[in-house]
Amino acid sequence: MRNELLEMLASRKDEMIEIRRFLHENPELSFKEENTAQYIADFYEGKDVEMERNVGNGYGIIVTIKGGKPGKTIGLRADFDALPITEEADVPFKSKNDGVMHACGHDAHTAYMLILADCLIRFKDSIKGTIKIIHQHAEEMPPGGAKSIVESGILNDLDAIFGTHVLPLAPAGVVGYHSGYSFNGRTHFKLVIQGIGGHGSSPHMANDSIVAGSYFVTAVQTIVSRRLNPFESGVVTIGSFDGKGTFNVIRDSVELEGDIRYMSDETSQTIEKEFKRIVRGIEEEFGVKCELDYAADYPPLYNDPEITGMVAESLQSMNDKDIKEVREFPKLSPSEDFAYYLEKIPGCFFYIGCTPKGVEEPYFNHHPKFDINEDALLVAAKSVAQVVCSYNEID
Amino acid sequence: MRNELLEMLASRKDEMIEIRRFLHENPELSFKEENTAQYIADFYEGKDVEMERNVGNGYGIIVTIKGGKPGKTIGLRADFDALPITEEADVPFKSKNDGVMHACGHDAHTAYMLILADCLIRFKDSIKGTIKIIHQHAEEMPPGGAKSIVESGILNDLDAIFGTHVLPLAPAGVVGYHSGYSFNGRTHFKLVIQGIGGHGSSPHMANDSIVAGSYFVTAVQTIVSRRLNPFESGVVTIGSFDGKGTFNVIRDSVELEGDIRYMSDETSQTIEKEFKRIVRGIEEEFGVKCELDYAADYPPLYNDPEITGMVAESLQSMNDKDIKEVREFPKLSPSEDFAYYLEKIPGCFFYIGCTPKGVEEPYFNHHPKFDINEDALLVAAKSVAQVVCSYNEID
Amino acid sequence: MRNELLEMLASRKDEMIEIRRFLHENPELSFKEENTAQYIADFYEGKDVEMERNVGNGYGIIVTIKGGKPGKTIGLRADFDALPITEEADVPFKSKNDGVMHACGHDAHTAYMLILADCLIRFKDSIKGTIKIIHQHAEEMPPGGAKSIVESGILNDLDAIFGTHVLPLAPAGVVGYHSGYSFNGRTHFKLVIQGIGGHGSSPHMANDSIVAGSYFVTAVQTIVSRRLNPFESGVVTIGSFDGKGTFNVIRDSVELEGDIRYMSDETSQTIEKEFKRIVRGIEEEFGVKCELDYAADYPPLYNDPEITGMVAESLQSMNDKDIKEVREFPKLSPSEDFAYYLEKIPGCFFYIGCTPKGVEEPYFNHHPKFDINEDALLVAAKSVAQVVCSYNEID
Amino acid sequence: MRNELLEMLASRKDEMIEIRRFLHENPELSFKEENTAQYIADFYEGKDVEMERNVGNGYGIIVTIKGGKPGKTIGLRADFDALPITEEADVPFKSKNDGVMHACGHDAHTAYMLILADCLIRFKDSIKGTIKIIHQHAEEMPPGGAKSIVESGILNDLDAIFGTHVLPLAPAGVVGYHSGYSFNGRTHFKLVIQGIGGHGSSPHMANDSIVAGSYFVTAVQTIVSRRLNPFESGVVTIGSFDGKGTFNVIRDSVELEGDIRYMSDETSQTIEKEFKRIVRGIEEEFGVKCELDYAADYPPLYNDPEITGMVAESLQSMNDKDIKEVREFPKLSPSEDFAYYLEKIPGCFFYIGCTPKGVEEPYFNHHPKFDINEDALLVAAKSVAQVVCSYNEID
Repeated sequence: MRNELLEMLASRKDEMIEIRRFLHENPELSFKEENTAQYIADFYEGKDVEMERNVGNGYGIIVTIKGGKPGKTIGLRADFDALPITEEADVPFKSKNDGVMHACGHDAHTAYMLILADCLIRFKDSIKGTIKIIHQHAEEMPPGGAKSIVESGILNDLDAIFGTHVLPLAPAGVVGYHSGYSFNGRTHFKLVIQGIGGHGSSPHMANDSIVAGSYFVTAVQTIVSRRLNPFESGVVTIGSFDGKGTFNVIRDSVELEGDIRYMSDETSQTIEKEFKRIVRGIEEEFGVKCELDYAADYPPLYNDPEITGMVAESLQSMNDKDIKEVREFPKLSPSEDFAYYLEKIPGCFFYIGCTPKGVEEPYFNHHPKFDINEDALLVAAKSVAQVVCSYNEID
Repeated sequence: MRNELLEMLASRKDEMIEIRRFLHENPELSFKEENTAQYIADFYEGKDVEMERNVGNGYGIIVTIKGGKPGKTIGLRADFDALPITEEADVPFKSKNDGVMHACGHDAHTAYMLILADCLIRFKDSIKGTIKIIHQHAEEMPPGGAKSIVESGILNDLDAIFGTHVLPLAPAGVVGYHSGYSFNGRTHFKLVIQGIGGHGSSPHMANDSIVAGSYFVTAVQTIVSRRLNPFESGVVTIGSFDGKGTFNVIRDSVELEGDIRYMSDETSQTIEKEFKRIVRGIEEEFGVKCELDYAADYPPLYNDPEITGMVAESLQSMNDKDIKEVREFPKLSPSEDFAYYLEKIPGCFFYIGCTPKGVEEPYFNHHPKFDINEDALLVAAKSVAQVVCSYNEID
Repeated sequence: MRNELLEMLASRKDEMIEIRRFLHENPELSFKEENTAQYIADFYEGKDVEMERNVGNGYGIIVTIKGGKPGKTIGLRADFDALPITEEADVPFKSKNDGVMHACGHDAHTAYMLILADCLIRFKDSIKGTIKIIHQHAEEMPPGGAKSIVESGILNDLDAIFGTHVLPLAPAGVVGYHSGYSFNGRTHFKLVIQGIGGHGSSPHMANDSIVAGSYFVTAVQTIVSRRLNPFESGVVTIGSFDGKGTFNVIRDSVELEGDIRYMSDETSQTIEKEFKRIVRGIEEEFGVKCELDYAADYPPLYNDPEITGMVAESLQSMNDKDIKEVREFPKLSPSEDFAYYLEKIPGCFFYIGCTPKGVEEPYFNHHPKFDINEDALLVAAKSVAQVVCSYNEID
Repeated sequence: MRNELLEMLASRKDEMIEIRRFLHENPELSFKEENTAQYIADFYEGKDVEMERNVGNGYGIIVTIKGGKPGKTIGLRADFDALPITEEADVPFKSKNDGVMHACGHDAHTAYMLILADCLIRFKDSIKGTIKIIHQHAEEMPPGGAKSIVESGILNDLDAIFGTHVLPLAPAGVVGYHSGYSFNGRTHFKLVIQGIGGHGSSPHMANDSIVAGSYFVTAVQTIVSRRLNPFESGVVTIGSFDGKGTFNVIRDSVELEGDIRYMSDETSQTIEKEFKRIVRGIEEEFGVKCELDYAADYPPLYNDPEITGMVAESLQSMNDKDIKEVREFPKLSPSEDFAYYLEKIPGCFFYIGCTPKGVEEPYFNHHPKFDINEDALLVAAKSVAQVVCSYNEID
């Protein structure tokens, strides 16, 4: 069946591209993907599957394909939300939704997955085990969709889960993988430092919150420089220092916001402990009051080494003209809510090269000019198909 | 003549109050005091004086009273602009001009000065020397009116200059003085620190301007703590740290604004040298580009010790029922453009207690609830009259 | 009697110089002035006075001269200890005591005071009131001698106290005074910051005390820059940062020592509160343990304004050929334990110009080349004599 | 031959231990290993090899074993210097040289290598290619011995190089490896910050070097926190802040020393650029003069991935009762001058577990109580023998 499946996918490449372009023209923001979800549901209309809609905290859709033979239960995830970005890419199927853009490639993920699902449905009887297609909403905006889908229990029976992401780190034809910790976990914080306002000429009558905030920023540098294991990765960024005021008035309060990244739970815990310690220290040191909102967004994404090894080996052994190279990718600094699935279910999230033809310095995901080589859709579909067959020992 | 003058002033106290209330109801912002200036000009209409209007860079008015006898030339200054503050004081003559308020007492200054001028005109023939009444615009907003009036040359013939300010540091009846440096000089600055923006997870691809700005703020503290003579006064306040952004994006630039105070030219120069040195240091240290706008507003105000001694002695010797006490006041942290006059002309700027009756913790100048005891108007008028008589040896 | 006294002093100028040179050749360190005290006691041997030795916590000597007429009780203080400095001044009466030097002029203080005391004893019968000569030990080394002498109760009956200090701020012939706060108070501290040592390549296994100490130093700058009234004087100096170690080992602890100055008790209290707050803040911020020893040495010296006015006026009215000028001196940054007397007894500590003839840039007190114009001894003796006469209304 | 070689090694385990104990009792410091070198030379006396002594900048010895068959040239390195540590380990063969100790296991390295070399000599005729035994002096003290040996040219003909290190990260029987960057590179620096000394009460007359040094320490934190790729490892430790002084005197200069670690040349270059930038920035910011001595010690150690793969595979396939496990080790924070060989010659430096029996928390290398399980000697000898045979295709 494996070869037939791969050939059928190849024959339906144009359909993938068509779907992708339709979705690209009609992007919707996280948690607001009503039409996109309807489009997906319509796609499955009349097909021999179970479909559950509005799964988790949004428009999530779980499509269950029960194979004709006994075997393990696999999840395949494709996300479908877009970003609040005004498209600047010069493509004929440009976003029709002003200020919203599929700048992260979720259109591609959904497009290949729909055709792959349709093909798998056609081979249903030959399939060992069960395949759950997870059309996930709201990957781009914490708390994301994945966490709530996991918590819904609908994936409790999964033995393994797989997902892919298009990345312009390599041309179409290249598939990338990374074993172990692969995407950063992320925490965001908001810190209000409350001092006492006053006249610029009389600092002793006030308590200068800009001064306290600035010393805070300098102290925070020591978390990464002195508190983390140098062989572990961690970042503490203060992205916002809101202390705009009048030149001759001492600010009574400032508001800082920031972004914390880490590649392991241990690092996350160390940063949190030290960050909160510094907040308390600044309160004491400068006699200010601090209000801290510190909340984890997505955990670090951990690819199961055994399954990732299987994925790499399986893809490397394919000898398929569309999959030209399988290589290790480096760790990646962004965050992905696929990490939530991997906290509960062993699996692998791997990468589909998508640099447009002839482009040497491609625009990255989230750039207004982000674009892909659409050959990548078939590469994704074939790769996932191959992994499914390998995992469930389907020849 | 001196006693007649003082008695005549006492008899016209109600007129002073009436004028003050009219002005209080009709405040105008600095450089926009068209109606106020017209009101003043109308007041002098038909009186035996020379009047020059639109002096300096605004609505300044100089009224010259030539005495009948030879003597020195004296300047008396009263300012007449108001502040961009919405009045919250509970008075029947509340500001009719929304968002504008005589919250610094310039209404009182102008009111007593008009009546005093009128009285002096009536005694013209007995007066030794010449008296120039300086109705000054725009004290509240740099570059102020004083500097341009001095530069116009119209005061080149002055031997001495006097002015007063109502201050709720003491009740009505108290007159204050301070010899030597008395009001702070002020400089303001704006500093743009230009780094390179980037993604919060990849600080090495960016150059974080919030970090550079924060280290700048901490380094600036050493100017006052280590560079100034501990017996000299100086303040460097960063009143604005404009670095509002998105939590997960590294800011490419921040803008700082601030306020610098000093009580001597030497201190001003030291601060400027060290401030600019730190700016250059931060550029090098963090590889950022700094754009600095650093400009002096008003210089420190220096009361001539000899003339101030004369003022204090003259007032102390009055034995007048309205002037109950003459005492030394401390140095004051605000800035005053009267300092420009005193750079060129020896003189004294002294203080008129004005705390409202029965109030223990009065609202200070520039507060939306600022209010005065109107008895202070007569105290001001009598004090200045006495000083004029003493200086020009008028019995 | 006043004129006779002044003349007698003038006639004994050479004796003053002789005594001063003897003391200069034989300096003794604070609390070890055994021979100096004996020399002083011998001087009074057989004279009609009461003498009490070993007053306070050292070799202090109080000599009481009871006048023949009723009047107030005055204290006159001269200190007699020397410094641990190796003399480099090129004088024929150079210190014979290696490493010890009268580099602060206490030899001059004691020399003029002995002769003045002797003269006063001779005029005893004509003197109104009582004069206590306070030969004080250990001014140079906290806790000093003054505090313990005050605490002994021996001065409880004093109505006023006077003292002088030779200062090369002016030539011999000039007497200086300053009303109100005149010398800085001083506090010293020692702070041990205890972290955890470790290997330089593994900061996360250690807790770097050099980093904590450095952030402490930067935070401490805000005490002076933001916490003190800009019109008040205060200094926080970290004079010692003992963190010498090995380049590749993280220091487990550092020891900081420093010096704090202030011109008022309020400033002293503010600094102490903020300093201790920052210490606690650093403990929390960096997870270190701090051990702080924070102790006041001498308080700010406060010259009673009324008595200082009397001193200035009295000296200005002298018309004496040796006292050529009486002028206000600025506030002075050093500390003086005469401040302890003035906490309990109103009085005045004033200054005797002593710049050597022909020297434009004199070496200051405590310099190994410090030297004085010995004419200053007579100036000191005459000034104090005049002040005694004026205070006790002796003609 | 391979099996015979391994068996012969097993039969000579006791000799290895004997040699190791002798060396342990007679440790010599880096560059002073005269007796140790003589001992090694004596060992080869009369054997059929070429020996070159005093290679490089010390007592280095290169022993060349020419195999009887054609093949590649391999280097095998064992270092033989000891550390300036007073031994506290409770062993019967404790160091006889006070204050010197083989606390890093170089005694073990040399011991197994001598016996291995002797065995290889015996199998000379069967050996393909040439084996150069590198007995290296002075690994512990920069500039080390390796760099100079490489520069001597004596290893120019090497095709590959191998070395091992005993590490108590695992029990005897475990061999560890790490591909790519494996040991940190290291740079040390000394920075003198020259300000201007002065009296603690008058900071404006001085230029406080402790303040400048402290701001430097805080600024340096940003190198690791903001300038390095978060997925790269780097450390900047200030191990010494020599600013001991007197509490009331402002220090004119401070001296800082420190240790910089990195896992790649790129990181090394970034740190150097930013470090020097901050030094220049501090000079400008605080008006001090900086004198910087910044020198690389050892580069990061890079194990050739292909050769390391071969090593791991070869050892894993051994099925030898002494080599119980072959596993990946993490990156290690110390530095090793074996890195110099690997800059020029592809090779692999791998690890020999040596935790003493029954010990759960072993003392690490460089600890005064460092000790090893001597079974590790045979493991090392067999591992290197196996690698030699595999690399040169000796069955």
